[in-house]
Amino acid sequence: MASKQGSKSQKKKGKEVKKETGLGLTNKKNDNFGEWYAEVVVSGEMIEYYDISGCYILRPWAMAIWENMQVFFDAEIKKMKIENCYFPLFVSESILQKEKDHIEGFAPEVAWVTKSGQSDLEVPIAIRPTSETVMYPYFSKWIRGHRDLPLKLNQWCNVVRWEFSNPTPFIRSREFLWQEGHTAFATKDEADQEVLDILELYRRIYEEYLAIPVVKGKKSELEKFAGGLYTTSVEAFIPNTGRGVQGATSHCLGQNFAKMFQIVFEDENREKALAWQNSWAYSTRTIGVMIMVHGDDKGLVLPPRVAAVQIIVIPVPYKDANTEAIYDACTSTVNTLTEAGFRVKSDLRDNYSPGWKYSHWEMKGVPLRIEIGPKDLANKQVRVVRRDNGAKQDISTEGLVMNVKEILHNVHDNMYNTAKQKRDTCVKIINTWEEFVVALSEKKLILAPWCDEEEVEKDVKTRTKGEMGAAKTLCTPFDQPRLPEGTLCFASGKPAKKWTYWGRSY
Amino acid sequence: MASKQGSKSQKKKGKEVKKETGLGLTNKKNDNFGEWYAEVVVSGEMIEYYDISGCYILRPWAMAIWENMQVFFDAEIKKMKIENCYFPLFVSESILQKEKDHIEGFAPEVAWVTKSGQSDLEVPIAIRPTSETVMYPYFSKWIRGHRDLPLKLNQWCNVVRWEFSNPTPFIRSREFLWQEGHTAFATKDEADQEVLDILELYRRIYEEYLAIPVVKGKKSELEKFAGGLYTTSVEAFIPNTGRGVQGATSHCLGQNFAKMFQIVFEDENREKALAWQNSWAYSTRTIGVMIMVHGDDKGLVLPPRVAAVQIIVIPVPYKDANTEAIYDACTSTVNTLTEAGFRVKSDLRDNYSPGWKYSHWEMKGVPLRIEIGPKDLANKQVRVVRRDNGAKQDISTEGLVMNVKEILHNVHDNMYNTAKQKRDTCVKIINTWEEFVVALSEKKLILAPWCDEEEVEKDVKTRTKGEMGAAKTLCTPFDQPRLPEGTLCFASGKPAKKWTYWGRSY
Repeated sequence: MASKQGSKSQKKKGKEVKKETGLGLTNKKNDNFGEWYAEVVVSGEMIEYYDISGCYILRPWAMAIWENMQVFFDAEIKKMKIENCYFPLFVSESILQKEKDHIEGFAPEVAWVTKSGQSDLEVPIAIRPTSETVMYPYFSKWIRGHRDLPLKLNQWCNVVRWEFSNPTPFIRSREFLWQEGHTAFATKDEADQEVLDILELYRRIYEEYLAIPVVKGKKSELEKFAGGLYTTSVEAFIPNTGRGVQGATSHCLGQNFAKMFQIVFEDENREKALAWQNSWAYSTRTIGVMIMVHGDDKGLVLPPRVAAVQIIVIPVPYKDANTEAIYDACTSTVNTLTEAGFRVKSDLRDNYSPGWKYSHWEMKGVPLRIEIGPKDLANKQVRVVRRDNGAKQDISTEGLVMNVKEILHNVHDNMYNTAKQKRDTCVKIINTWEEFVVALSEKKLILAPWCDEEEVEKDVKTRTKGEMGAAKTLCTPFDQPRLPEGTLCFASGKPAKKWTYWGRSY
Repeated sequence: MASKQGSKSQKKKGKEVKKETGLGLTNKKNDNFGEWYAEVVVSGEMIEYYDISGCYILRPWAMAIWENMQVFFDAEIKKMKIENCYFPLFVSESILQKEKDHIEGFAPEVAWVTKSGQSDLEVPIAIRPTSETVMYPYFSKWIRGHRDLPLKLNQWCNVVRWEFSNPTPFIRSREFLWQEGHTAFATKDEADQEVLDILELYRRIYEEYLAIPVVKGKKSELEKFAGGLYTTSVEAFIPNTGRGVQGATSHCLGQNFAKMFQIVFEDENREKALAWQNSWAYSTRTIGVMIMVHGDDKGLVLPPRVAAVQIIVIPVPYKDANTEAIYDACTSTVNTLTEAGFRVKSDLRDNYSPGWKYSHWEMKGVPLRIEIGPKDLANKQVRVVRRDNGAKQDISTEGLVMNVKEILHNVHDNMYNTAKQKRDTCVKIINTWEEFVVALSEKKLILAPWCDEEEVEKDVKTRTKGEMGAAKTLCTPFDQPRLPEGTLCFASGKPAKKWTYWGRSY
């Protein structure tokens, strides 16, 4: 083994020259995070920049992650008897503007179609920024009696928000992919329950698929969905920038849209009643959070449960070795693991050295690398190298499937735990404005006692304005620490009502 | 059994009053087909008409069919190592116009975004009518050497074609869902082969999933894809209107786009060469063809392999019968069939009579209905009623799964065979212009010997212009009858080169 190691590290060293000239990242995650991110999404082949600003090409490597999440989520909502549908991309101006708060929230970002071919349209038509106003006129039509409820729909689609501030791949783009669920119930209790059931699915996407810890909580009045009753979210945190990210949202719309769109049903007592509605969504933003949280200076680090390729098998031939036998062993390893249900590929290209391939697949973030050289062949083993921590391990061919399963499980857990530890290190509990200002400058995720007044949040925003953006509430976590009697709001000095997370956000 | 039948048909008769007042279709398929279609898509809950003309809401009943086809096709193209991706909805004007023939084909239908919020955009931005021009600048970037080929991408997305002629749900809408595959190869042979491999998948969607016979063939020069080298298609036929429908297309683009977009690679001899490209697509139009071909005066008739619900289980309680036991039997039937992999539901609503439910689920086209009444319970059997031909059969509970499997298989085959027989009856082989005109007036699918000259096709179009629309070529079938030496073109009198299908089309 020793000699193999020596020869391999030599080989690797030899390749490092090549790596520096082409393969590696020029930016370091901890030195210049923004540039690192912009580079890693391209070098990892997730994104190609597009000639229209704020639009990005999702390459297969990213799309596969989206699809893997979709398989999970789509199956779960189908179990909840939510049905998929598809509503038009376009919405007419008059209907878009029916709910005042809602349109105020979205109007500045709406893209308008005004021409087809050479002709002007009679009236401009909006492209959906979200589909409440697209769908609810038809909810009104379909819902007549209490037996028509609940109505539970979902669609997988693209939406457009023509934002002008700082576009960022996945995180803030003018077009993005998402699912949007829209449901209507006879009672508030049912709506409340579904908000939480969906939020739990979103937590699972982040924690069980993307290996990212999130906080479940409620948005402030200022931050809730425009036109809704209340908004819950899962909030992630990016330690490098000290910014929170709204990971996904599950809104209870109350009866507000039902009033505007006349979604009225006859209840069991033959009385007219307004439906209770929810809407909820997660988007391709999830992928951006995943890259930001897990990536490192070698490139992407993909969580095993969503990675397009979980295991890459690389032959390590030597001059005098039986190259054909090594290639055969690679192929049979791929076959064994594929049959066992893993997503696995081999890289048998003969014009790249093993070292080049290591760097390439590290850049792409494949969770496990299997190397097969002459020694491995002789010993009926393979060498397994983890992307998350670099750990190497020789595994007998016989126990391959069971071991790989366990290692991938460990990779996921380790990625989650590492991310959680980093996140937790950033959490700062504060009680006073002075502590708040210090914590904010230290890029902390700030947990503070708050009086829960909208004016106070606005005031905090004003007082923290600056180049980096103002601080705001991220969420009030469901899991509340004890709030001792007499605790005062860090910002207003009034009696505090709750612990709330504050910080800058994406 | 006799008494049950008597009582049931009585019950049914009783309900027919109700049926006429609400549930049935007011139009007959053979009397006024257009109105029948417009009605059945709504009454069958496939479509809801939308307030923007030419846009339609795909309800869950339609979306499930789309998803069932998608599962098949997506798995098949993944086997062919085609990868999913997602390119932006928007394309800038300068790039859209790069390929002259292509933009000429699509320009009149392009929707333009010119405003966001209250601001005018600096330059108008087009919404993709198809994505050749969106994607190929990046093919040019990604393809450098022969090892970068083949490049095989697909996306599932919406596209917009702002057509003004006669919008029809599924068949011709301003926005529709489709998949579009875009591939690049080093050699024409590889491209040619893929065109046919994909076309075979399209044939399978129609014949094996939608139970619709199609003709594989090549489009004329006039009818081929704008900017492409040649177009192949699967062509379906609607006997009621005597119109052909282009079911799906698989294009070889040749090197034309490669030239415009500089998709150049270094071949094995280090020479620069242009890539050979294909593009191919099928859309939600498939669903419209399915409705037109199979639907009847009672509503939709869904092919079992795509139906959201393959079997509907309906309790038939009687006054003195043990209602609970009947409901339990329904539930256990659903469970047994679900476990066996069928898509099955029960309709246990107590505010609708069995007769109303029969009509309701017939309207929605569910392939099999299972009725369970007291006699069935006593005899440990269920009654199975086919939607396609109304045939009834009592099946012992014991043999349920095997029998249902076989019956559904027969339903599919019978639907296909019936559709094929109707289609074949419409095929008319002609040799002269006089015969052609008669056949066209009789709404036939016309197979005629043709000289294959573009001017002649244009001439036929001119000579057949009228209210119903002009006749044109549908395709030249790959499966060619013998063309006797000396056969003349039906339209020009010149020597015929091939047999080609002609007719009006959607």
